[in-house]
Amino acid sequence: MDSKRLVAVIMAGGSGTRFWPRSRRNRPKQFLSFTGEDSLLTSTVKRLEGLVAPEQTFVITGAVHAKLAREHTGLPPASIIAEPERRDTAACIGLGAMLAQSVREDAVMVVLSADHLIEPAASFRDTLMRAAELADAHDALVSIGQRPTRPATGFGYIELGKRIDDRTPVGFNVTSFREKPDAEKARRFLQAGNFLWNCGIFAFTARGILKAMRQHLPELAQGLDNITDPRDPACIERAWTALPKISIDYGVFEKATNRLVVESTFRWDDVGTFEAIARYRTPDASGNVARGDAAFLEGTKNCLVDNDAGGLVVISGVSDVAVVRSGDVVMVVPRRDLESVRNVVDRLAKDGRHEVL
Amino acid sequence: MDSKRLVAVIMAGGSGTRFWPRSRRNRPKQFLSFTGEDSLLTSTVKRLEGLVAPEQTFVITGAVHAKLAREHTGLPPASIIAEPERRDTAACIGLGAMLAQSVREDAVMVVLSADHLIEPAASFRDTLMRAAELADAHDALVSIGQRPTRPATGFGYIELGKRIDDRTPVGFNVTSFREKPDAEKARRFLQAGNFLWNCGIFAFTARGILKAMRQHLPELAQGLDNITDPRDPACIERAWTALPKISIDYGVFEKATNRLVVESTFRWDDVGTFEAIARYRTPDASGNVARGDAAFLEGTKNCLVDNDAGGLVVISGVSDVAVVRSGDVVMVVPRRDLESVRNVVDRLAKDGRHEVL
Repeated sequence: MDSKRLVAVIMAGGSGTRFWPRSRRNRPKQFLSFTGEDSLLTSTVKRLEGLVAPEQTFVITGAVHAKLAREHTGLPPASIIAEPERRDTAACIGLGAMLAQSVREDAVMVVLSADHLIEPAASFRDTLMRAAELADAHDALVSIGQRPTRPATGFGYIELGKRIDDRTPVGFNVTSFREKPDAEKARRFLQAGNFLWNCGIFAFTARGILKAMRQHLPELAQGLDNITDPRDPACIERAWTALPKISIDYGVFEKATNRLVVESTFRWDDVGTFEAIARYRTPDASGNVARGDAAFLEGTKNCLVDNDAGGLVVISGVSDVAVVRSGDVVMVVPRRDLESVRNVVDRLAKDGRHEVL
Repeated sequence: MDSKRLVAVIMAGGSGTRFWPRSRRNRPKQFLSFTGEDSLLTSTVKRLEGLVAPEQTFVITGAVHAKLAREHTGLPPASIIAEPERRDTAACIGLGAMLAQSVREDAVMVVLSADHLIEPAASFRDTLMRAAELADAHDALVSIGQRPTRPATGFGYIELGKRIDDRTPVGFNVTSFREKPDAEKARRFLQAGNFLWNCGIFAFTARGILKAMRQHLPELAQGLDNITDPRDPACIERAWTALPKISIDYGVFEKATNRLVVESTFRWDDVGTFEAIARYRTPDASGNVARGDAAFLEGTKNCLVDNDAGGLVVISGVSDVAVVRSGDVVMVVPRRDLESVRNVVDRLAKDGRHEVL
């Protein structure tokens, strides 16, 4: 397959409340850096270098974040597409398919999220190219799957069918898509050995995904028909709010039959909560882990600090607590509650503390 | 007694590690404000207005804090006396007595601490004048005592003897001075009803205290004899390190016989720990209390926030924790450990984190 047919669609619409106070309304997660200097979005674009041309790369983001997306990607202005509001992934990918076809009719799309940590980039490009080739050769909807390393309950799982051929990265038929499991089910998936995490990274022909949408989400397909020019913001805006709000997994993948999956050869982390920082750092002997300047004194156990505000965070004699310090906000919660930071944001919104959100 | 004989000696030598990170080496507790705008030192000086003339008021402080003391008091430069190093209260008061005599031979000294919260000022001046009159009339060492409101273990206690006369503020003979008691003894003192907290505020004639020192602390008295000019820094410096390091309570008051006490008619707080802020604020229904901007969300109980850094401190789902935020430092400790913040400072010093101390 000619790689010139590749069009990348980067979904960058996240509001990132799970990373408050690091993420704020005006700077969601994809604009933060978790390792090194580059933001997640910048890394996502850089990772495509040599595989997809900038003119064939689209970033779909919230209208209020379009300026930030230009700054973080260095892409041509025409590559930054503003969503009038969030309509979940099916609508976003539908628009992406129309954009891809505006580049070339026979486009093969790779759909990426702007807020994943992925290394190394070369392995990522290999896997992506393999997925694109399978999508084209089999007229299939191809997902990228990650071999599970723990019984995670925060991801969807893909049940593997037969291996397609002896090439690598390895491609499989898909037996089923499974929604985020409970802990017991997640343990079974991990032990069974024939389940991969659903990375939320896909490849398909633009024609193929639009056809699948017409079949499984006819209301969405009709709505997309109203977007006569996918590069015209006014045109998008008029059609947008009529589009059904549904995820691509639930709306298309779980119903489709022509599904394949490629097992990733790269390390992948969706950086879902502040706990992700613990996975990239070595805890001290008492299980404390920090990003940024922190001091854990006597009797401090299993604490987590995320401090990007410059000064020192010192904890003494406290266990199982997370302290996140960013800008002028300090948040203190039980470490186990890091996965529900959204509740903190909701509460503060209800209390009218919009200036800190 | 002619109030022109009054000379005030304000002891402002505290290093204030109990208030870290609000207090730092270059800004100890007496230079912080706990209520309103004025620092504790500024309030201490203002409180004397109308009772003691500025030229008869001395502030004895650490050499490194002399400049700050001038700024906070507005007193004439000659009123700010630098201690070359801390030698405890007996040496400080001995020097104060010599300074008082340099103003006038028949000086009646009132000795104050720079780091107490006291209100109202008029009642304070009444009590002080009464103590000075008793000191002069009875040739006595007079302490100010505070009626206990709780079985505090952080203060010394004064056991009351017979009431002197029917005047107010009420003066008593002293039966005994008691060091900081354990919890059980503190409860007995409170129940007995004839104990006052020792405020660390005193009145005596300069001649009287120097005579008492010669009797009970002859080594100190001889050392003070070497200070031929108490207003000459070089002269103080030469004599200083030879002075014994002992408190006025232990070195003089516990041994002397001519002791009286005046019961205060003012509210007094020595602001010993961050818990003091809780005494000046109303906790929420879950026992949380804050100075500065804080949000206590669901499941947060009995937490304390002291935040003078401007932004928000938000706590969710955590109990019995104190968060102190000042400058670029955030400290998180169990609330019960607020009385041992000094340990945190010691640990950070051992770890070489001098830049935050």
